[in-house]
Amino acid sequence: MHFTFYALDGTWGPNPIKVGIFLEQLGLEYEVKFKSMNDDPKKGVKGEDYLKVCPNGRTPALVDHKNNDFVVWESGAILKYLANKYDDSKQYAGKTVEEQATIDEWLFFQCTGHSPVQGNLFFSLKYWPSKYNEEAPKNVVKRFRDETNRVLSVYEQQFKRQAEKHGEDKMWLVYDHPTTADFSCMPWMVVLSKFGGEMGLNLDEYPHVQKYIEKALALPSAKKILAKLPF
Amino acid sequence: MHFTFYALDGTWGPNPIKVGIFLEQLGLEYEVKFKSMNDDPKKGVKGEDYLKVCPNGRTPALVDHKNNDFVVWESGAILKYLANKYDDSKQYAGKTVEEQATIDEWLFFQCTGHSPVQGNLFFSLKYWPSKYNEEAPKNVVKRFRDETNRVLSVYEQQFKRQAEKHGEDKMWLVYDHPTTADFSCMPWMVVLSKFGGEMGLNLDEYPHVQKYIEKALALPSAKKILAKLPF
Repeated sequence: MHFTFYALDGTWGPNPIKVGIFLEQLGLEYEVKFKSMNDDPKKGVKGEDYLKVCPNGRTPALVDHKNNDFVVWESGAILKYLANKYDDSKQYAGKTVEEQATIDEWLFFQCTGHSPVQGNLFFSLKYWPSKYNEEAPKNVVKRFRDETNRVLSVYEQQFKRQAEKHGEDKMWLVYDHPTTADFSCMPWMVVLSKFGGEMGLNLDEYPHVQKYIEKALALPSAKKILAKLPF
Repeated sequence: MHFTFYALDGTWGPNPIKVGIFLEQLGLEYEVKFKSMNDDPKKGVKGEDYLKVCPNGRTPALVDHKNNDFVVWESGAILKYLANKYDDSKQYAGKTVEEQATIDEWLFFQCTGHSPVQGNLFFSLKYWPSKYNEEAPKNVVKRFRDETNRVLSVYEQQFKRQAEKHGEDKMWLVYDHPTTADFSCMPWMVVLSKFGGEMGLNLDEYPHVQKYIEKALALPSAKKILAKLPF
């Protein structure tokens, strides 16, 4: 087996899904190991076994068995490692320093600008009551819903520019083909396509984002992973 | 002038400070342009002039005048661009794919795991009342304070491992010398050293983090930038 990667029991979580789809895209062989959201020593993400793999106690983490069991965690870092190490064409991470930087800016935007706000919105609606024994305060929901909408507008404008430049069938986030930034973005967008309504978001306001989600869902690598998920 | 970079009027903001310190570290010449937190067409981060530079409407963004006015935004992507383009020694971004990945995992952890939670804690205490006309709900403060403490524990353990491995004077985040991950981390830690008390955090619980802050504050590149700031 070439790789082991760690995902969350049940839904995997959007960040482990990034890694799964990208491994499929690269045609690499892997095994998924599942961890629970607790501190069980053997099974939990905050348990001592897993903390030796990932000191942050979060999924995903990747172990490369054909590279001395090299370990890397943080989904953004994992995508870059896989692209730099196993894609000789450099189409996913960029050929020049400038291409790398332009892909990186959207990759960081996804990881730091997008995931945390969409994640907080989802948490406030789905998990706040059980965690804090109250409905999420209305301004918490408002704050993260407003910011998720703002982020979706940034994507919408970017996809529109990309569609004008490359045509809709080549409308990817940075270039006319998918890059690490797309593999980072896709699972979070797919989550929106499933749960956006419950989250009070109206994707009809973002027609290019919707087209992007359709394109992502049609990728064989994404199809293969999504077929394994329970939603 | 080699570079222009954009920061926020007044305090700069922790992410633009990353770029300022790293440009000083590399000995590169730059000019800072200031933007306001509004949509004034000429002056605002959400104004049409700046949105042409950075479609996300946030600082920092960097313009490289000696590379055809190449533009890059997102602090993590800017640090990587500067390291990849202007540091032949590769000490800051890593020499091998494996070193790059190990630096990247801490860089992404800082940008996506650390900044958003510390930023939300700071916002909830400082700006929530004027934005939402109420005190921040207590569980909002609790959520982001708990998570900031968890993140500080992850750093504390890492710095402890680094001190054991390299000695305290070489106790940097990833290796025995500063990398892009450190330049990403430093300004957020410095903010903590100034405002941690107001944020209800007790840095005495994190002795290695405190030592790290002292080391960061003693770096000539950091000193030079911090002397320009109003706090």
